[in-house]
Amino acid sequence: MEQGGTARMETFSDGVFAIAATLLVLEIGVGTGVEHNLGQALLDLWPSYLAYATSFLIIGIIWVNHHDCVACMSRVDRPMLFINTVFLMVVSFIPFPTKLVADHLQKPGEHAAVYAYAITLLLMAVLYNVWWRYARQNRRLIADGVPQSRVDAISRAFDPGLVLYLLVLIIAVVSPLAAFVLTLLLAVFYIPAGALFERGFS
Amino acid sequence: MEQGGTARMETFSDGVFAIAATLLVLEIGVGTGVEHNLGQALLDLWPSYLAYATSFLIIGIIWVNHHDCVACMSRVDRPMLFINTVFLMVVSFIPFPTKLVADHLQKPGEHAAVYAYAITLLLMAVLYNVWWRYARQNRRLIADGVPQSRVDAISRAFDPGLVLYLLVLIIAVVSPLAAFVLTLLLAVFYIPAGALFERGFS
Amino acid sequence: MEQGGTARMETFSDGVFAIAATLLVLEIGVGTGVEHNLGQALLDLWPSYLAYATSFLIIGIIWVNHHDCVACMSRVDRPMLFINTVFLMVVSFIPFPTKLVADHLQKPGEHAAVYAYAITLLLMAVLYNVWWRYARQNRRLIADGVPQSRVDAISRAFDPGLVLYLLVLIIAVVSPLAAFVLTLLLAVFYIPAGALFERGFS
Amino acid sequence: MEQGGTARMETFSDGVFAIAATLLVLEIGVGTGVEHNLGQALLDLWPSYLAYATSFLIIGIIWVNHHDCVACMSRVDRPMLFINTVFLMVVSFIPFPTKLVADHLQKPGEHAAVYAYAITLLLMAVLYNVWWRYARQNRRLIADGVPQSRVDAISRAFDPGLVLYLLVLIIAVVSPLAAFVLTLLLAVFYIPAGALFERGFS
Repeated sequence: MEQGGTARMETFSDGVFAIAATLLVLEIGVGTGVEHNLGQALLDLWPSYLAYATSFLIIGIIWVNHHDCVACMSRVDRPMLFINTVFLMVVSFIPFPTKLVADHLQKPGEHAAVYAYAITLLLMAVLYNVWWRYARQNRRLIADGVPQSRVDAISRAFDPGLVLYLLVLIIAVVSPLAAFVLTLLLAVFYIPAGALFERGFS
Repeated sequence: MEQGGTARMETFSDGVFAIAATLLVLEIGVGTGVEHNLGQALLDLWPSYLAYATSFLIIGIIWVNHHDCVACMSRVDRPMLFINTVFLMVVSFIPFPTKLVADHLQKPGEHAAVYAYAITLLLMAVLYNVWWRYARQNRRLIADGVPQSRVDAISRAFDPGLVLYLLVLIIAVVSPLAAFVLTLLLAVFYIPAGALFERGFS
Repeated sequence: MEQGGTARMETFSDGVFAIAATLLVLEIGVGTGVEHNLGQALLDLWPSYLAYATSFLIIGIIWVNHHDCVACMSRVDRPMLFINTVFLMVVSFIPFPTKLVADHLQKPGEHAAVYAYAITLLLMAVLYNVWWRYARQNRRLIADGVPQSRVDAISRAFDPGLVLYLLVLIIAVVSPLAAFVLTLLLAVFYIPAGALFERGFS
Repeated sequence: MEQGGTARMETFSDGVFAIAATLLVLEIGVGTGVEHNLGQALLDLWPSYLAYATSFLIIGIIWVNHHDCVACMSRVDRPMLFINTVFLMVVSFIPFPTKLVADHLQKPGEHAAVYAYAITLLLMAVLYNVWWRYARQNRRLIADGVPQSRVDAISRAFDPGLVLYLLVLIIAVVSPLAAFVLTLLLAVFYIPAGALFERGFS
């Protein structure tokens, strides 16, 4: 039952991560009346590809991290399931601001689109922090065999997230494109950096 | 085979819960011709966000409860699989009335939209009751090791559901918005309340 | 590895069944310009609800049966994985003819829509027969512990499928609506009948 | 933890494969105003069916092969998870060029559509090669019990992929239709050929 507790949280979470990531492609589409220059129309869709890649990588990273965190837990309780559901609600929302960015980057409305994107990611990061903080506080849900150093290392990895997404939001005031490219770069460099970091504490 | 029976029912159910919840985001969209005031258009979409959050939380709650119930069963039979499939058919339908509410709340057609939403939830609650009643009757599918007090506690938790959704339907006659906000509040307060309740019987 | 063979076929199949069933809801939609009589517009959508329920139940039944069949197998080989993929390709196609029926029943084009639906189901039934025939021939993939009587009972349950879907196709020439309602009735009565039948051989 | 490493990579990958394959059907649709000749309109959609079948089979084949490769691994590390996520990002993108081919084959824009399709498959093949090369190099992630002959056999099976997709791209310059039919034939003949091949080394 205890172990089953974390297993059932993971099943639903894995499903939502995989589906949200795969639905992103539905947001990409060429307009009508472009048949005679489809090649150019496909090149002009670069903001869609950029938005697709950024959101897919971010969801992929969260999925990997979510597993790392759950692997430290021996059980879940109802408040945890509730926080997890609210967190997934925001993850599952990502395709909507992704489409906004895809449709509006470098066009009228790009500020609002990138704000919506950055606010969604910021909200996700806040909820993810609450989720982990609830689990680790007084080792509430942490398994006995997990050393405190591992818990602390994961906690430190959470620190930059909120600040970085807040930074993205501020940069978006000046340049929505720069803010969005920064978000992609953060995602691309996160995993190699995480690998270095992991080497540091293990 | 016996254990495999409940496992296979859970796999399909988990898939449907996760997909139905994640598809909800596809129902949110801004119209065309709003590029020059996208920020305002995004604010005007508040009924979409409200409908998205309500349906996501409701599906999340049903998913948690479904697992709690299945955890008490040692086997499933064909009638159970059939009832479960019909129940999932209604859960999987939720994105449609959710879109109706998102598109019509505080606009013409809001009564019909909220009726459709409340009727879908009511139908889901009825089928869920039938599902659990079939399983627990004479402990038909209940595992030997599960105390009757636990079965009864779950049964009591089912009681308010039907009445509350019927109440939502009645309130929708007077105020669709009030009925819908009540649905969200019921979802938000359900899990903390459930936690208190659980503490009561365990 | 052997057991893993059937497990991996089931994982992918379960995913496709659950997603195909849950995507059906996306095919339901009200047109534009009906805001002032949304209630009537929702009632006029009855062919959509009928098509949704029929396809959902059919996919649910195939899913249950697929599991029953796989439970008799101890391993899969590459030809089996190939047949299974082609079979899933047809299952996953079901939302398209479902939408055709939803949009055209009792309207111009209803014959073509119901033909497309019946041909898809017929093709699915043919492939499902090939799939099971490949597995059971000389007990190629059947586990040692499974009695031949159980294999034969499952085989007999396959017999009516092809004939019934062919019958639906013929009835559709005269009355598309009658053919479609018959399809739903076949789905609804299948599982109780299957339960009786199962009692017969076990 | 080690074994859990490959299990969690498989869960997310399986989800993405199944969802990407099942979403393909959403790309098929008849236009409006064809009610009075729906039968002809459905026949005219043959490029959509061709594109659907080709992409579904390709995703199904990759899924089978991905499992065969992962079955040789005893663990994954963070770089592997990152490569896998980028690989899945391209797999999950397939529905978009599939729709392009469905909409433009034998019509204006068919060259651009088939180029986009072939480039996507080529990119996928490149990433899949990188993925396997990373795992097998110095047997980095290969389980101790797996004979080197099996690893080498899988590696040889990777060889034709890149060349064939490059060939498709070149043929598309002359005839987009021929290139696309070749892609389908490669998919259809892959698994029987793979079965022969497998017999050769085991």
